[in-house]
Amino acid sequence: MAQTVVEISGHIIDSLILPKVLDMIVGLGAEFDILEIKIGHRRTDPSYARILIEAPTQELLELVLARIKEHGALALDEIEESVEFEPAPADGIFPDGFYSTTNLLTLVRFKDRWLEVEPPEMDCGIRLDGETMRAETIPIHKVKQGDLIVVGHRGIKIIPPERRVPRGAFEFMTSLVSTEQPKGLLIQEIAESMKSVRLQGGKILVVAGPGLVHTGASPFLVEMIEKDYVQILFAGNGLAVHDVEAALYGTSLGVYLDRKIRASEGHEHHLRAINQIRKAGGIRQAVELGWLTKGIFYSCVKKGVDFVLAGSIRDDGPLPDVITDTLKAQEIMREEVRGVGLALMIATTLHAIATGNLLPASVKTVCVDINPAVVTKLTDRGTFQALGLVTDVEPFLRELCQYL
Amino acid sequence: MAQTVVEISGHIIDSLILPKVLDMIVGLGAEFDILEIKIGHRRTDPSYARILIEAPTQELLELVLARIKEHGALALDEIEESVEFEPAPADGIFPDGFYSTTNLLTLVRFKDRWLEVEPPEMDCGIRLDGETMRAETIPIHKVKQGDLIVVGHRGIKIIPPERRVPRGAFEFMTSLVSTEQPKGLLIQEIAESMKSVRLQGGKILVVAGPGLVHTGASPFLVEMIEKDYVQILFAGNGLAVHDVEAALYGTSLGVYLDRKIRASEGHEHHLRAINQIRKAGGIRQAVELGWLTKGIFYSCVKKGVDFVLAGSIRDDGPLPDVITDTLKAQEIMREEVRGVGLALMIATTLHAIATGNLLPASVKTVCVDINPAVVTKLTDRGTFQALGLVTDVEPFLRELCQYL
Amino acid sequence: MAQTVVEISGHIIDSLILPKVLDMIVGLGAEFDILEIKIGHRRTDPSYARILIEAPTQELLELVLARIKEHGALALDEIEESVEFEPAPADGIFPDGFYSTTNLLTLVRFKDRWLEVEPPEMDCGIRLDGETMRAETIPIHKVKQGDLIVVGHRGIKIIPPERRVPRGAFEFMTSLVSTEQPKGLLIQEIAESMKSVRLQGGKILVVAGPGLVHTGASPFLVEMIEKDYVQILFAGNGLAVHDVEAALYGTSLGVYLDRKIRASEGHEHHLRAINQIRKAGGIRQAVELGWLTKGIFYSCVKKGVDFVLAGSIRDDGPLPDVITDTLKAQEIMREEVRGVGLALMIATTLHAIATGNLLPASVKTVCVDINPAVVTKLTDRGTFQALGLVTDVEPFLRELCQYL
Amino acid sequence: MAQTVVEISGHIIDSLILPKVLDMIVGLGAEFDILEIKIGHRRTDPSYARILIEAPTQELLELVLARIKEHGALALDEIEESVEFEPAPADGIFPDGFYSTTNLLTLVRFKDRWLEVEPPEMDCGIRLDGETMRAETIPIHKVKQGDLIVVGHRGIKIIPPERRVPRGAFEFMTSLVSTEQPKGLLIQEIAESMKSVRLQGGKILVVAGPGLVHTGASPFLVEMIEKDYVQILFAGNGLAVHDVEAALYGTSLGVYLDRKIRASEGHEHHLRAINQIRKAGGIRQAVELGWLTKGIFYSCVKKGVDFVLAGSIRDDGPLPDVITDTLKAQEIMREEVRGVGLALMIATTLHAIATGNLLPASVKTVCVDINPAVVTKLTDRGTFQALGLVTDVEPFLRELCQYL
Repeated sequence: MAQTVVEISGHIIDSLILPKVLDMIVGLGAEFDILEIKIGHRRTDPSYARILIEAPTQELLELVLARIKEHGALALDEIEESVEFEPAPADGIFPDGFYSTTNLLTLVRFKDRWLEVEPPEMDCGIRLDGETMRAETIPIHKVKQGDLIVVGHRGIKIIPPERRVPRGAFEFMTSLVSTEQPKGLLIQEIAESMKSVRLQGGKILVVAGPGLVHTGASPFLVEMIEKDYVQILFAGNGLAVHDVEAALYGTSLGVYLDRKIRASEGHEHHLRAINQIRKAGGIRQAVELGWLTKGIFYSCVKKGVDFVLAGSIRDDGPLPDVITDTLKAQEIMREEVRGVGLALMIATTLHAIATGNLLPASVKTVCVDINPAVVTKLTDRGTFQALGLVTDVEPFLRELCQYL
Repeated sequence: MAQTVVEISGHIIDSLILPKVLDMIVGLGAEFDILEIKIGHRRTDPSYARILIEAPTQELLELVLARIKEHGALALDEIEESVEFEPAPADGIFPDGFYSTTNLLTLVRFKDRWLEVEPPEMDCGIRLDGETMRAETIPIHKVKQGDLIVVGHRGIKIIPPERRVPRGAFEFMTSLVSTEQPKGLLIQEIAESMKSVRLQGGKILVVAGPGLVHTGASPFLVEMIEKDYVQILFAGNGLAVHDVEAALYGTSLGVYLDRKIRASEGHEHHLRAINQIRKAGGIRQAVELGWLTKGIFYSCVKKGVDFVLAGSIRDDGPLPDVITDTLKAQEIMREEVRGVGLALMIATTLHAIATGNLLPASVKTVCVDINPAVVTKLTDRGTFQALGLVTDVEPFLRELCQYL
Repeated sequence: MAQTVVEISGHIIDSLILPKVLDMIVGLGAEFDILEIKIGHRRTDPSYARILIEAPTQELLELVLARIKEHGALALDEIEESVEFEPAPADGIFPDGFYSTTNLLTLVRFKDRWLEVEPPEMDCGIRLDGETMRAETIPIHKVKQGDLIVVGHRGIKIIPPERRVPRGAFEFMTSLVSTEQPKGLLIQEIAESMKSVRLQGGKILVVAGPGLVHTGASPFLVEMIEKDYVQILFAGNGLAVHDVEAALYGTSLGVYLDRKIRASEGHEHHLRAINQIRKAGGIRQAVELGWLTKGIFYSCVKKGVDFVLAGSIRDDGPLPDVITDTLKAQEIMREEVRGVGLALMIATTLHAIATGNLLPASVKTVCVDINPAVVTKLTDRGTFQALGLVTDVEPFLRELCQYL
Repeated sequence: MAQTVVEISGHIIDSLILPKVLDMIVGLGAEFDILEIKIGHRRTDPSYARILIEAPTQELLELVLARIKEHGALALDEIEESVEFEPAPADGIFPDGFYSTTNLLTLVRFKDRWLEVEPPEMDCGIRLDGETMRAETIPIHKVKQGDLIVVGHRGIKIIPPERRVPRGAFEFMTSLVSTEQPKGLLIQEIAESMKSVRLQGGKILVVAGPGLVHTGASPFLVEMIEKDYVQILFAGNGLAVHDVEAALYGTSLGVYLDRKIRASEGHEHHLRAINQIRKAGGIRQAVELGWLTKGIFYSCVKKGVDFVLAGSIRDDGPLPDVITDTLKAQEIMREEVRGVGLALMIATTLHAIATGNLLPASVKTVCVDINPAVVTKLTDRGTFQALGLVTDVEPFLRELCQYL
């Protein structure tokens, strides 16, 4: 039998960390023996546990250690241990056995110091710089031959977020998707979170799909932009095209937004809108030329709100502002999410998942869609402060604006 | 080859009746030969067609005739023919070969007169009364031994509704279910239809499920009741229980409707609400006793709005007002739908389908639910003026009230 | 400050009971102080905690005690305390402050003995019989004036089920609803659970909706009935009608189950099927008369499998076998669920929810539907061994049969 | 009043073309007068109509003509008229008033000849080449300055597909999405269509998402590839990554496909799979190196089946085979769809929509997903031979393979 002792501390009882760790140990086929446990008498007191783990093989023991590490459990003999690393064998390739990151706060022990890995992002590697003593997450395609990449699971410490008393929407609703609930109070909470993020100087990121325009919700996003509640906008060609179409022709996918009867004649409007913006050279230029005088992107340009339009294979056109290379788009999005305190994802799947992949677990995320499958998918990705609302986009934004 | 000649008239081109009839003939394995066709030059002119139908067997020909009859095509040799009938062999049993009704306007030829079958209801039989010269739809369980019941397909004429130029929501949206559309104008149309029904002295029927209370939408239904836009309310035990629960405890299924935090302590409130109303003897009595002072059912009692609470096997309690026998409940609902000009079905499947079964095709029906499967199921039942909206119930009612 | 000391024991760490209890205390606005904790070193060792609870008011303290009691936490001063009770003031009415049951194993302390409340059913009252020393759950409509009904929360002990190591489908999947997973192994697990229930002499209950017939899955349910894997069948008029329709006409809702082209002529078949069975006097009689020679209900009659057909307001007909009074149907279902070890709910919402209301938490429940909303609703009702599968009914049953 | 006369011929009654055209005329605010109509006596006889259209303004008349043209109605004075064109003002920009294509068979009249526009693709322009006398669809981003681009609506004829008697799945089911139907016969029809496409030398295109691997359906796609029923595979990084992950580690998204218990340890497997393929230099190279020895892409390489992996912003890695530039990927897909007779889209939204955009209306399209919203979206895009199935992917492919 292979065995080792791990310790774990913090709010390990009420944040469910201890039960999860015990579950994992047994679930993977090992056994545990709780050697010592101290539980804080009150909420604010931290707890501590020392646990002996026994596994039939050293290999399984390593696996168990790797897994429970994600919940903050650290082997005692690892506490003083340094992280292991190897040079990348070639550009775009990690060394075998590379450590694959989570989106949680992570430390690596290097030259007797714990370095914080910056920024937290899931499914990356960790690159060490011995000179600057920095540890950073690096996506696989950006690694260069010779970069020092962390391998194995030793010398790595993860600080899991602590679940706190349900006091507000984010704590209460985590990962909950419900259609049969009063939503007014939740929307109020979201508004309050947005205000608080702005007060603390954080950025608010909006990720939106074209359904936002089709349902007639654009004016509310415009209002949010003008009230300074949007610092960055991530979207695809579709949102921008239909926003421009609405500005130029009053339609969205050929449907007049302000008339009672379907404008069946308008299905080509979106292509004309694309042509017009291509002629101007881009959205910003169309605003400057006075061709584009209203809408979401007009407001972004006027208010100086950054937008990133990432291309996809279903795009018509696309608009000149669209970044057609997906890796390049990802890189720009990666840069832009720095400093984001709250992300609001509305009526989009592709862009929301892509954004979710880039965000640290600590960023508050609100996902709104009328399709529960989309909301489930997005709130189910290991984000710790995700709030999913299955509701109609237009009334959601309308009500949100009232509270802002 | 068996053959016969049918004729068909009205707006048979633009109402798609002619193509459908031709489709059916060929689809069932027969052939057609258009002997004569006159098409109205303009929208308002009626058209006319005479069609020879040939089928390999007399049996198939009869089947074809039975089917195309539902679209108004009548065999020439049938025009002067009387309806056939037989006495019911026993209580609750139709004679073999009974004619099964649609929800369309139907006439039967009896003693050289065309009698209108009253009221149109699908999946019933037709009972003839030779003395009063009346023809009425009769559900199978209500037939009495000896009742004269129509059999076969002869001597029956169906007047299909004509599809008209899309001028408003009901014509435009028929059976359409869409989440990505601006809904404001549709909701405005619904409000206008409701006003117009009331102006013409028609009744508005609301069929609602408990989700209406859970989402905090009750105040809007109360407003509609008070503004005289609800003449009848169909629901189950659930809506009434949670409405009473909200009135007595401020919760719905234990969730406080006006607080930020879940009232986890409240899951038994609904049973206490039931007990309280049982103690009073019923909802009406609870209002009279001053125990129930607000909410949907309080307003119904105060405004004299009829409500029918139909029981189901999932009911807790139930409230004394619930009709636990489903046949009896159906009968009462059948009586109450007379004179209904518009039915608004909100957040309910069981009660909405049951109501849809009872309504003539001519009644405007609006079905609102956040689950597209429910909306599809309800608008897909042969109703000719059904409008389905996939949206959130609370903002829908909030906006509807603004237009009323 | 009001305060008291509670104790809690069992697998309180790995079954998440302790964290939940601490959560509740703080969530409701009280404070805790862990006076003593002993944690089992190994999985099999029980743990124990003694916790001081302080609340600002006695009322809140009572509320906290009532809530955490559902997780097995018992106040020390309550351990020797007797349950309180009052006579029902009238038929069908509980005394004020009645105790509302959960579906968990519950004991009440009466005359210095702990009596097990039989059977566990949620949303009922508890009736005491001092002579026979029995405590039984009683639905509100069955209570008689003078019955002794438990009130308050004292002298009641709940034994929460312990979550165990994920070893099989039921432990692993609890409440999980996923479409993107290999389902073969889960279906195998379900088959094994069914075999094991039968080996132990338990009954298997199938609750099914008409979609089972429409999708052509009937032959598999027939196979299960014949292989003795169905002891009771709960359904509505719809399943039986379409099963009979398929037997008599080869169609289901007018769609031929074995031909390539839609039988558009068949929409009245279901009403003819109803008439035929009414003529026979019932399903059993139709089998005896030789009119019904195949299908699900034919097999039930032949194999002596009980079926309960509960009426609903959307029923056509109905068949003579349908119990149209919902309270009566509920009572019969309540009797029939005794001894059920596993419930398989397929393509049904109404009947599945009604059944779920009646089952103790200890019964394994499998819910299969292609609509995730239905599965979520059913697995989300406090059942502790519920397995939800979002999949197509026909291939599910086909594969299940292969493993049986 | 502006007026003109149009004619329309073909199976205009039973293909619903005439009613649609009349609807459009009135719907847009104009009036019609049917000057002459000849209706084929039998199914096989073509019909013919001459219709006078009157509109209040010349502008509206033009709009009406442009719209009804899509259904094959051509103004008499247009029959001899040449198409109008203008040079593109710059690279990537169409002239104002450019004609926006449908995915229907289209002819343009140029130098007294009707040229077929090749290939049909929606939302493109039409480029004329006077020398080679060719007319081709051209996406906006590919147009070069000076290219002659068709403008206006004159001299363009569209041949709408004729809806035929429902003889098989594709005719019957068009755009129909149903969960409650026997699917066996439909799957058989799909298999027969696939066989027939192959017999006629057509290509079968499969577009698939990673859900195919997660649900354990890969072996069936492998079988189809090996039996020569897949000529091209469109997918994204995800399908390939999880296919490789399954081949290398036996997991998909960390779930073991052949074990009963979740492999919670495996969530990083997909990143290791990516690294491995990057090390090899690509999928093909990994097969040649003997690193990849089974799975979908292994079979593609072995059988010489082309695959196009189009990048998206949510990709991890990506694999070296992924085309990260979306315009480039679109171009390659555009080339590959030539000659495709049937497209099978499974468990994918993004790639299926992108593919649907590129396909002519004449290509048979089957879309399979367990989420009805996806199926509706895909079958609702003007494709005339689209068959949508809401079902589980794994049993669908399993059954399809049995019929192939």
